[in-house]
Amino acid sequence: MSARALSAERLWARLMELGRIGALPGGGVNRQALSAEEIEAWRLLIGWGAQAGLVPSTDDAGNLFLAWRAGDTALPPVMAGSHIDSQPTGGLFDGAFGTLAALEAVIALKESGHRPCRPVLVVAWMNEEGSRFAPGMMGSEVFAGRRSLAEIRAVRDAQGVGVGEALDRLHAAFPQIERRSPGFPVAAYVEPHIEQADMLEASGAVIGVVSGIQGKKTFEMTIVGRQAHAGTEPMVRRSDALQAFARVACAMQAQMEREDEAVRFTIGRIEVEPNAPSVVPALVRFCIDLRHPDNGVLDRLGRRLEALLAEHAAPCAFEARRLVDAPSNGFDERLRAIIGRSARERGYPVLDLLSAAGHDARQMAALAPSAMIFIPCRGGLSHHPDEWAEPEHIAAGATVLLDVLAELTSPAHHEGDPR
Amino acid sequence: MSARALSAERLWARLMELGRIGALPGGGVNRQALSAEEIEAWRLLIGWGAQAGLVPSTDDAGNLFLAWRAGDTALPPVMAGSHIDSQPTGGLFDGAFGTLAALEAVIALKESGHRPCRPVLVVAWMNEEGSRFAPGMMGSEVFAGRRSLAEIRAVRDAQGVGVGEALDRLHAAFPQIERRSPGFPVAAYVEPHIEQADMLEASGAVIGVVSGIQGKKTFEMTIVGRQAHAGTEPMVRRSDALQAFARVACAMQAQMEREDEAVRFTIGRIEVEPNAPSVVPALVRFCIDLRHPDNGVLDRLGRRLEALLAEHAAPCAFEARRLVDAPSNGFDERLRAIIGRSARERGYPVLDLLSAAGHDARQMAALAPSAMIFIPCRGGLSHHPDEWAEPEHIAAGATVLLDVLAELTSPAHHEGDPR
Repeated sequence: MSARALSAERLWARLMELGRIGALPGGGVNRQALSAEEIEAWRLLIGWGAQAGLVPSTDDAGNLFLAWRAGDTALPPVMAGSHIDSQPTGGLFDGAFGTLAALEAVIALKESGHRPCRPVLVVAWMNEEGSRFAPGMMGSEVFAGRRSLAEIRAVRDAQGVGVGEALDRLHAAFPQIERRSPGFPVAAYVEPHIEQADMLEASGAVIGVVSGIQGKKTFEMTIVGRQAHAGTEPMVRRSDALQAFARVACAMQAQMEREDEAVRFTIGRIEVEPNAPSVVPALVRFCIDLRHPDNGVLDRLGRRLEALLAEHAAPCAFEARRLVDAPSNGFDERLRAIIGRSARERGYPVLDLLSAAGHDARQMAALAPSAMIFIPCRGGLSHHPDEWAEPEHIAAGATVLLDVLAELTSPAHHEGDPR
Repeated sequence: MSARALSAERLWARLMELGRIGALPGGGVNRQALSAEEIEAWRLLIGWGAQAGLVPSTDDAGNLFLAWRAGDTALPPVMAGSHIDSQPTGGLFDGAFGTLAALEAVIALKESGHRPCRPVLVVAWMNEEGSRFAPGMMGSEVFAGRRSLAEIRAVRDAQGVGVGEALDRLHAAFPQIERRSPGFPVAAYVEPHIEQADMLEASGAVIGVVSGIQGKKTFEMTIVGRQAHAGTEPMVRRSDALQAFARVACAMQAQMEREDEAVRFTIGRIEVEPNAPSVVPALVRFCIDLRHPDNGVLDRLGRRLEALLAEHAAPCAFEARRLVDAPSNGFDERLRAIIGRSARERGYPVLDLLSAAGHDARQMAALAPSAMIFIPCRGGLSHHPDEWAEPEHIAAGATVLLDVLAELTSPAHHEGDPR
């Protein structure tokens, strides 16, 4: 297995080239889902795939597939990849690494003379990040049958543009490529990704075998006060929605800091109306991101946050909506074993770890045996222009994927594969 | 004096007509400074002035004047009016009442055969509200020599449009009207306005003789944290700018609630970066509006707010900028006496009161004897679509202004007027 090698130089060069699409002046990228930048990135990927004889297709949910149509094409394909959309001030590796590593691994397999027993698909999922259209993981959730196409098409961005409209624009830009229905059968799914935390770095490991993804809940909470003149309305008579928000946020933060260290609690987004300097705010809407590996704790903390909103919003009115309610999941044990073995045979230090971040693999695990390969990122920093992964770790992650894809498409593996 | 009357019906009808420019679907108006709506409102005012033989002019700061060129035109004019810009979700009376009351009073004076000893100017000041371009009172501040034209021209709105550019667009829309330099001599300035508080309503008074305007400070404060992934970054390692804001806001609110009941403390505007649901916020910028009638207390509270930012922003970095620093001022005693006498002669119940809200008259008081005439507004509510003034109070305020303008432009008054 160790005889095969991929072009680490080309993989790195392509990561840098993809990073120029939506590049921010000070570094990092803004390549949000279904944007003009993502369309440009599709063109680049489809072109690279075509050079290697890979056939592009898409589906109604705006996922991009590059197919190596080999082996028994009646068999469900093995799939690998990630996403190429980014946060508004994101880094060059989150998502892009997984998709380009899969592309490079497939090219290397082809060029090595490997004869797969079944097709292999490289995938770039639509809107993993969820920053423009919330919540994210839209492409993989529709693919896995966890959300309907109608539901995601109705979501709008801050400018009022709908996913439906943006999807139609994406598809119109690629009239020549085949369009499938989402959710066709898949034999296995493997997603390489940067860790977005620093456990690998701290332990000196290069390959993370991901045991599962910690549970996540997101809420959209609204506090409704009463607009008034900042210079005249006496303080005691106000229903100031922003002050109510500050009370609620402090109470929630204090509560979460009393919990165990695995809690991740974030208020990342807030909108205020009318948001004018001399007007007492009438309305505050904010988003909570809550994660914990233990589903029991996660459920309890979710209820606690809703209770704290109710306790501290007065005299304002309030409302809490649950957007995402995803319990922790475990990845496929056989795939995890293959990843760990491949890494050890290559001589990479290995660590088993839980993913604190959500990934499309969480959705795919509902549809097919799935797993993830993590590599370190500097200081654990992600969702930030300074996000960074070392070239040798990029090469290591892609090489392990190459070996895993070789094994998953070998005839021996095929025979043992429950269908 | 009581023989003269103005057309209360026409004044009310014009207030309603002006309120249709920028009207919001559920009531109220959005007619922000230098917007297309304000340009449309200028056209309406200039047209109404022309019907009455009033000559329009403007100045480099975008103030609009309608002149009754009568009497000794070499003498400084008496000036009356207010502003016609609104908050983004403002009411029909804040500002518009003062400008239209002045227009109607001048028309009534003309039609009554009154022969003024000097010219009378109706004014609509540029950007009193300061919601689009902060801080407000731009037109009157430049006119009174308290800010430079270059300084206000450099201010930008949230979309990046500068005051300079917007002013040029305004002036280009009215190429035919004379343009003067701001700050020409004025004999006296009188501004009618809704109270924006409920002291008149509570006491049953119809006319408020405004003794002065309470002091105001505004701050723009910035908290700089470190952007990170909401799902992975441990809570203890975060520098979450929004959580720091919540701590700072709660500490400030608690402190201000311990002060006397005359304090007005508001955080009306907040911006968060990157403001994405699954990213720990990197930066929060917010505006504070602080008012108190006692200049010593105001200064002390301003310093206290800056200290509270420093105490509670850690581990984030922070910065405080002072935007507005206006002490309390008192209006001209002789003008106040004339207003009080005029109201009593008309049989309107009178109350002397302090204005909690800022007004252009604060700036004009630095340039010329100035005063304000308040009328009640329902429940004291302002900066809100539901803002409301009764037609009989509108008529009363304009009638008192009519009498005041008659006296200020009578030859007797002129002779006694120190020049």
